[in-house]
Amino acid sequence: MANQRGKLIVISGPSGAGKSTVVFKALEGRDDVCFSVSATTRKPRPGEVDGKEYFFVDLDRFREMVANDEFLEHAEYVANSYGTPRAYVEKKLNEGMNVLLDIEVQGALQVHQKMPEAVMVFIIPPSMAELEKRLRSRGTDSERKIEARLMRAREEYAAADFYDYIIINDDADKAANEFSAIITAEYCKYDLRKNYLREVD
Amino acid sequence: MANQRGKLIVISGPSGAGKSTVVFKALEGRDDVCFSVSATTRKPRPGEVDGKEYFFVDLDRFREMVANDEFLEHAEYVANSYGTPRAYVEKKLNEGMNVLLDIEVQGALQVHQKMPEAVMVFIIPPSMAELEKRLRSRGTDSERKIEARLMRAREEYAAADFYDYIIINDDADKAANEFSAIITAEYCKYDLRKNYLREVD
Repeated sequence: MANQRGKLIVISGPSGAGKSTVVFKALEGRDDVCFSVSATTRKPRPGEVDGKEYFFVDLDRFREMVANDEFLEHAEYVANSYGTPRAYVEKKLNEGMNVLLDIEVQGALQVHQKMPEAVMVFIIPPSMAELEKRLRSRGTDSERKIEARLMRAREEYAAADFYDYIIINDDADKAANEFSAIITAEYCKYDLRKNYLREVD
Repeated sequence: MANQRGKLIVISGPSGAGKSTVVFKALEGRDDVCFSVSATTRKPRPGEVDGKEYFFVDLDRFREMVANDEFLEHAEYVANSYGTPRAYVEKKLNEGMNVLLDIEVQGALQVHQKMPEAVMVFIIPPSMAELEKRLRSRGTDSERKIEARLMRAREEYAAADFYDYIIINDDADKAANEFSAIITAEYCKYDLRKNYLREVD
């Protein structure tokens, strides 16, 4: 089935949801999923390779890409800008790969608008109380920062109605199994495979 | 998550697609899926228990159930009639179980119309040529019967546009993994879990 186009899978979730662990576990042993590669205006760090960790571009080129609608989503910050080049994603999808994009809710909404067929996955802890507990147990954030993260999470929850799936991470293995299942199931969708029904022979 | 409602999963596919094997493998070790129980007018065989293999009813009761719209789908044949009672399915869904209904395309279409949220899965062999090969290799069907099965498969393919997923059974383990993934993924759908985002605490 090398001729079947892949799916773009967008995953979001509040800081403390355990997203990275779940994604890492879900992708173990899968060769049908790759990560999207972002463009950035920040300088490469030692060892970083253009086109691997990031596509490194200057601000002029970045803004040209914005103007040409070359991004599925982008954000400009004071220090650096980041964006997801549509061309790279399209290339991988056409090769039959499922492409994973780990991004916050605002960026996910941009992707959803530009590519409505993208699969939107939201991962959350079992409760706000549990999220707060996890953030505190890290011991890295100030009280003010924890409060800000919790408020941010509530804002994200309220804006999450364009997601297709919700994963409740009360157990990382179970959550990873669910995320992996979503990728597999989406690859079985009728629209991707209906050509198999057209065969007459 | 005992309070989460389950999903009705309908699976169809032509004779020779390997549906039973795939379903059996997919359900191994899962305790969140049960089969629907049909009502029938045929007499119980020795050992069959009412409410387990079937709900055994007489023709008057069957027709009353049809008149009362108690079936998600039904079919009356010369010898016996069969139907899927909605009440049993609803009871299991409300208990949080995913309910599996193995049924041909005509019945699946009835279910789709009466319960649009049901998940429709169509399982097919990799090609018509392969289907023909599998039917011949059984050695049980006459030439006429094989031709009839192939024509029936083509008719089903042409009518399958209301399905949500297509599983191509070129490898039973892979197909079973896909079917299991579909059940798991559907249980993660936004609409089933959005109440988790409403928590304010």
